[in-house]
Amino acid sequence: MTATDFRFHVEARDGAARVGNIRTGRGVIRTPAFMPVGTAATVKAVPPEAVRKAGADILLGNTYHLMLRPGAERVAGLGGLHKFMNWPHPILTDSGGFQVMSLASLRKITEEGVAFRSHHDGSAHAMSPERSIEIQRLLDSDIAMQLDECVALPASREETARAMQLSLRWARRSKAAFEASAPPPGRALFGIVQGGTEQDLRQESAQGLIEIGFPGYALGGLAVGEPQAVMFEVIAATTPHLPQERPRYLMGVGKPADIVGAVARGIDMFDCVIPTRSGRNGQAFTRQGAVNIRNAKYADEPRPLDDKCRCPACRDYSAAYIHHLVRSSEILGATLMTAHNLTYYQDLMAGLRTAIRRGQLAAFVADFETGAADY
Amino acid sequence: MTATDFRFHVEARDGAARVGNIRTGRGVIRTPAFMPVGTAATVKAVPPEAVRKAGADILLGNTYHLMLRPGAERVAGLGGLHKFMNWPHPILTDSGGFQVMSLASLRKITEEGVAFRSHHDGSAHAMSPERSIEIQRLLDSDIAMQLDECVALPASREETARAMQLSLRWARRSKAAFEASAPPPGRALFGIVQGGTEQDLRQESAQGLIEIGFPGYALGGLAVGEPQAVMFEVIAATTPHLPQERPRYLMGVGKPADIVGAVARGIDMFDCVIPTRSGRNGQAFTRQGAVNIRNAKYADEPRPLDDKCRCPACRDYSAAYIHHLVRSSEILGATLMTAHNLTYYQDLMAGLRTAIRRGQLAAFVADFETGAADY
Ligand SMILES: [Zn+2]
Ligand SMILES: [Zn+2]
Repeated sequence: MTATDFRFHVEARDGAARVGNIRTGRGVIRTPAFMPVGTAATVKAVPPEAVRKAGADILLGNTYHLMLRPGAERVAGLGGLHKFMNWPHPILTDSGGFQVMSLASLRKITEEGVAFRSHHDGSAHAMSPERSIEIQRLLDSDIAMQLDECVALPASREETARAMQLSLRWARRSKAAFEASAPPPGRALFGIVQGGTEQDLRQESAQGLIEIGFPGYALGGLAVGEPQAVMFEVIAATTPHLPQERPRYLMGVGKPADIVGAVARGIDMFDCVIPTRSGRNGQAFTRQGAVNIRNAKYADEPRPLDDKCRCPACRDYSAAYIHHLVRSSEILGATLMTAHNLTYYQDLMAGLRTAIRRGQLAAFVADFETGAADY
Repeated sequence: MTATDFRFHVEARDGAARVGNIRTGRGVIRTPAFMPVGTAATVKAVPPEAVRKAGADILLGNTYHLMLRPGAERVAGLGGLHKFMNWPHPILTDSGGFQVMSLASLRKITEEGVAFRSHHDGSAHAMSPERSIEIQRLLDSDIAMQLDECVALPASREETARAMQLSLRWARRSKAAFEASAPPPGRALFGIVQGGTEQDLRQESAQGLIEIGFPGYALGGLAVGEPQAVMFEVIAATTPHLPQERPRYLMGVGKPADIVGAVARGIDMFDCVIPTRSGRNGQAFTRQGAVNIRNAKYADEPRPLDDKCRCPACRDYSAAYIHHLVRSSEILGATLMTAHNLTYYQDLMAGLRTAIRRGQLAAFVADFETGAADY
């Protein structure tokens, strides 16, 4: 192993929860980690410096969006995604599969892969495990994801099992393609556990992936509309079947309470558009819960959004000012709200890491629910 | 005179052009100066730190917009405009008159002032010289402007003369109201020369204002659709009738070439939405002229927008990336384009100041026109 090999180190545990770090070729990711979403080679409304200052060690790029615009070959020609978007730190790319299923039109899934048409211009495209890996290598991501099929919930057990089995076969092809691509040291490919809300299928999926062997495992197909309690059950039933020494990534999650509960059940990595999308829509996350800054009660509020927050929006501006910007549809309102929410999320992750390290996660979770947690 | 008195010092001249500085209660303004426009208590799409880093010593706030939203009394209650928007440097506020004329509905002008309805919600408002000064004092601006009537061009000589005479009477009332408001040291009120394209009316207006006496004089009613040559003629015919030891502010101007020509004719201060509005629309100003970043030729361009530019957009990103952001309607595209254009404008002003100081303005103007000027 060289110094730049990809590796995960668990530093401390508290129940099922773990605190640790992932070493990649482009830097260390402290876990549990929240990855802001940089859909189109930008975390919407903020410059990369603000994402970094908020505390992010890694961000997520969307293969589906980037393959359509500006195009993976173009990004590669310009030096790769990190240089293109001025983010020299780790980037995880998804496989593109989830957004092909949710955004593209005229989708046709076969054993080979997915044929679809772009939601921009209707142009025809094809995605396979091999093409997904090729695109992710062109983008030069640090953590690539296998192509999988994520069925919409509720789904029949048969449909769920079929998609899980197809995803397993695609996992094997993805790994072969990744290894054939001769990735530089410090890069990794993660497998994705599917199986909907069927615990035995989740277990079968996990075992199948472990047999193939990945440096990290994701839980896919959750946070697609099911109740939080159901999601927590699936997580709790799945993580015991994943290797302790590999990071576990819960895809597309979530609200702060979802993250807190998932960390307590053994999850190490998250990504979600909620802090950025909500920020642009005027919703701010605070230690006392989510608030709508458009509410008239903020019009004359001289205090910041959140007294305990260290972000630029809270350091330099009153809630009244942010209220004014958002009500006036000023771009700076979206920028400041996004910077605030990203900072809130990173501070929450730091609070969780500290609580786990101290063996006080249960108390942190209880205090979090009453707005009394210290982070 | 105290150290914080408002004063203007001409450091060097080259023909009609001057380089100097204006000392205000909140800092020094290097002239010739360009003031970015912060319409609704924000320079659109950029944080105030970016405006400062671009090189701006002062920005402009719009009384009409701020009186309607969030309201001048509200801004005062929150500590004034500088604190509200986190810009501790000088701010010039317009009188609100120009935007009442161009944006509000159901306007009725009388000797007393203007009655109008808000373009937001149709609510009824009244503006008078005294109320304009009151609002500008509530905002706590460093340089206030008198209320004037700016007629649309083309206008008859009679109409132009009537509006100019009314503006002179309003100038007297504005000064009385300003002095009665007991402004802190280092604050100033400027008078506004009107008279359309009639040189004798401009002269009469200037003489009337000088009799009243102001620490600075603006040229209003230009850049409202007339050819550049006509605007230059009016400037050249007016500035000789203004005191040498007072700053001269050309309102609402303009494109880079307008500014260069006006500086050569003795103007010291400018404001305009062009760099910010054009930036949001994908137009970048460069030393080789204006370019549209949406043009397909930038899709694979690894070089920055402008090789000589020191702005974050040019320092950290390829033109291809900015092209991608703007074509994808990403907010960061507007932010980077605005930061670039504001930096370009400030670098142009710095280039003009250096050229005047060296007695080389004529060469600078000639080189500017061929894209060869060094700034
Ligand atoms: Zn904050
Ligand atoms: Zn630039």
